[in-house]
Amino acid sequence: VAGLPHPVITLLTDFGTADGYVAEMKGVLLSLAPEARIVDIAHDIPPQDIMRARLTVSRYWRRFPPGTVHVVVVDPGVGTARAALAVESEGRFLVGPDNGVLSSAIGVGHARVVDLDVPGGASPTFHGRDVFAPAAARLARGEPLDILGRTHRKSVMIHTPVPIRADGGGVTGEIIAIDRFGNAITNLEPLPGETVTVAGWVVPVVRTFGDVAVGTPCALVGSAGLLEIAVRDGSAANSLGLGVGMPVEWMPAPVP
Amino acid sequence: VAGLPHPVITLLTDFGTADGYVAEMKGVLLSLAPEARIVDIAHDIPPQDIMRARLTVSRYWRRFPPGTVHVVVVDPGVGTARAALAVESEGRFLVGPDNGVLSSAIGVGHARVVDLDVPGGASPTFHGRDVFAPAAARLARGEPLDILGRTHRKSVMIHTPVPIRADGGGVTGEIIAIDRFGNAITNLEPLPGETVTVAGWVVPVVRTFGDVAVGTPCALVGSAGLLEIAVRDGSAANSLGLGVGMPVEWMPAPVP
Amino acid sequence: VAGLPHPVITLLTDFGTADGYVAEMKGVLLSLAPEARIVDIAHDIPPQDIMRARLTVSRYWRRFPPGTVHVVVVDPGVGTARAALAVESEGRFLVGPDNGVLSSAIGVGHARVVDLDVPGGASPTFHGRDVFAPAAARLARGEPLDILGRTHRKSVMIHTPVPIRADGGGVTGEIIAIDRFGNAITNLEPLPGETVTVAGWVVPVVRTFGDVAVGTPCALVGSAGLLEIAVRDGSAANSLGLGVGMPVEWMPAPVP
Repeated sequence: VAGLPHPVITLLTDFGTADGYVAEMKGVLLSLAPEARIVDIAHDIPPQDIMRARLTVSRYWRRFPPGTVHVVVVDPGVGTARAALAVESEGRFLVGPDNGVLSSAIGVGHARVVDLDVPGGASPTFHGRDVFAPAAARLARGEPLDILGRTHRKSVMIHTPVPIRADGGGVTGEIIAIDRFGNAITNLEPLPGETVTVAGWVVPVVRTFGDVAVGTPCALVGSAGLLEIAVRDGSAANSLGLGVGMPVEWMPAPVP
Repeated sequence: VAGLPHPVITLLTDFGTADGYVAEMKGVLLSLAPEARIVDIAHDIPPQDIMRARLTVSRYWRRFPPGTVHVVVVDPGVGTARAALAVESEGRFLVGPDNGVLSSAIGVGHARVVDLDVPGGASPTFHGRDVFAPAAARLARGEPLDILGRTHRKSVMIHTPVPIRADGGGVTGEIIAIDRFGNAITNLEPLPGETVTVAGWVVPVVRTFGDVAVGTPCALVGSAGLLEIAVRDGSAANSLGLGVGMPVEWMPAPVP
Repeated sequence: VAGLPHPVITLLTDFGTADGYVAEMKGVLLSLAPEARIVDIAHDIPPQDIMRARLTVSRYWRRFPPGTVHVVVVDPGVGTARAALAVESEGRFLVGPDNGVLSSAIGVGHARVVDLDVPGGASPTFHGRDVFAPAAARLARGEPLDILGRTHRKSVMIHTPVPIRADGGGVTGEIIAIDRFGNAITNLEPLPGETVTVAGWVVPVVRTFGDVAVGTPCALVGSAGLLEIAVRDGSAANSLGLGVGMPVEWMPAPVP
């Protein structure tokens, strides 16, 4: 798996691109792994938003082919005692800070995690360039995980909150993200009920946008397998006043 | 042409990057076409702006070498009955929804269009990942267009509006886009006249920015061969109050 | 060095991506250098901000492996008499306008600079597509610098301002950039003093963010080797009211 002729290295950061920080990382990657194909994921994660980065990583890391190396640098703790990690999980590799951004890969059975050595000359404010990029390049070249550092026993893990089963038979979840279209993604898995309640609105559960009229709110199972609140050809977040953390209640259909 | 060792797949979406939707598509592409080189075009098309996407696609699809596969996903109709298309035009391939975004390639003589099959397990809200990316990967691997679906007879076509010839010998066009610099791109092809009128301003037609002083409005033939209204080292849209759809009038030079 | 099997071409522009200008350049690059790997640096440099582009280029151009071709198009003077340059410096190549954006590479000993020929059919408003991309593709294919144009004698050079030594033994520098995190990057190299003064604030000099409490201002040597003003887990620019050009004073520690 490792040591492909043109290994793929992906990059997720909150650096933006205009300052040149991501560019420096790409230069280091290509200097150390000259045959790599670099794939940008995103650099516009809101600054230091670990929760957002964690959720985004959970969507894509496993979609890439085995051998891919994912670099994830959303790292408000750079320059503190937080560990720097490299992970092997289901044949993919990930590198990033020990702050929860890699939870979705570390939480899988048989995942292996090592504590990366920080080179003496590393900048205390830019481990993306001086610690994570060099480690990613070594993994992309086919070096085994074990020689990059010692086994890391206990990683910081962040989990999506679990919905709560209510007394009356309903389930209460919450909004965990608002996407670019204003769709509100919840932590609820598909339910048999016909409506959900959010922010005082009662919203019908449908199969797809086409099942409601333009401008109408609906709830549907989104592409990550979770219930989303949407407005056809509009923004549910704006129209309904939704935000991350708001509760979403599902009540079972009344017995006729 | 097809089946290059490192085929190029380009991506244009309105997904932004932070949510990870584009990342999922890239993972699917590289899983199914492991040797591909992925080239980002843009992911910041305004949400669901088909007109803008169509215009941008028209600029670049033919600039890439034959065999390139262009993925275009600006798709407000996902989950409705709109068709999913794959196109072969002048040796390039394009995949995207049947809503007009691919018009510039479909409108060319000898273009072939097929109706993509939607796999049973496809998410009704994310054909980019489950329909278009898999089809693009198959084309990139050299599979012929015909085996991806049946011939599609009548595609949705969006055309740039045609300028109108006025009684007095002039021509009236309109602004079809404002670019990042505030240049207003019109649908007028080069004209022999000396001035154009827009939003009440009479603007001289020149060859290049250098022909006017800093801060001065001018009209010139832009890099797509169309007349643009610009302000040297400034924003014509802001300075002159220009917007998409505004008429632009060219009057012939008075006979001396 | 030149003529690698999969040469790397990087792109820095102020074009944004939605208009398709960068896409056109990528199409030209891949048509003329079909094996190239294109690496995006940034396209969100503020429009026509030569100073910002120059600083960003200075961070990354040398981090890439020898043979890399860097395309830099922040070019308010397109269509005027400004020269179009190609540069070979320390084994890397750069192409871009003669307006100072390439200063950090041109200023190195043994750098060679040529004046690119502008093809007759080039758009006077888009040298990125018609002059710089073709030149970059030729360099990526291994053509020597000399055949792209004649030696250019005197390039426009922009230098970071030099700090001023004050009478009392202190040094006065200035803020040269604000990054995405709100860190204020100065032109001061590491100093032995214990505090710096900026915008009326006296800020302690520390080794890393972890040395101060959350929300506290500090000054530290950033990843480019220059003193930065930062606020741990916050924005120094917002909290302290900092902007480019503001003076930053270092006074030597008082003798006890």
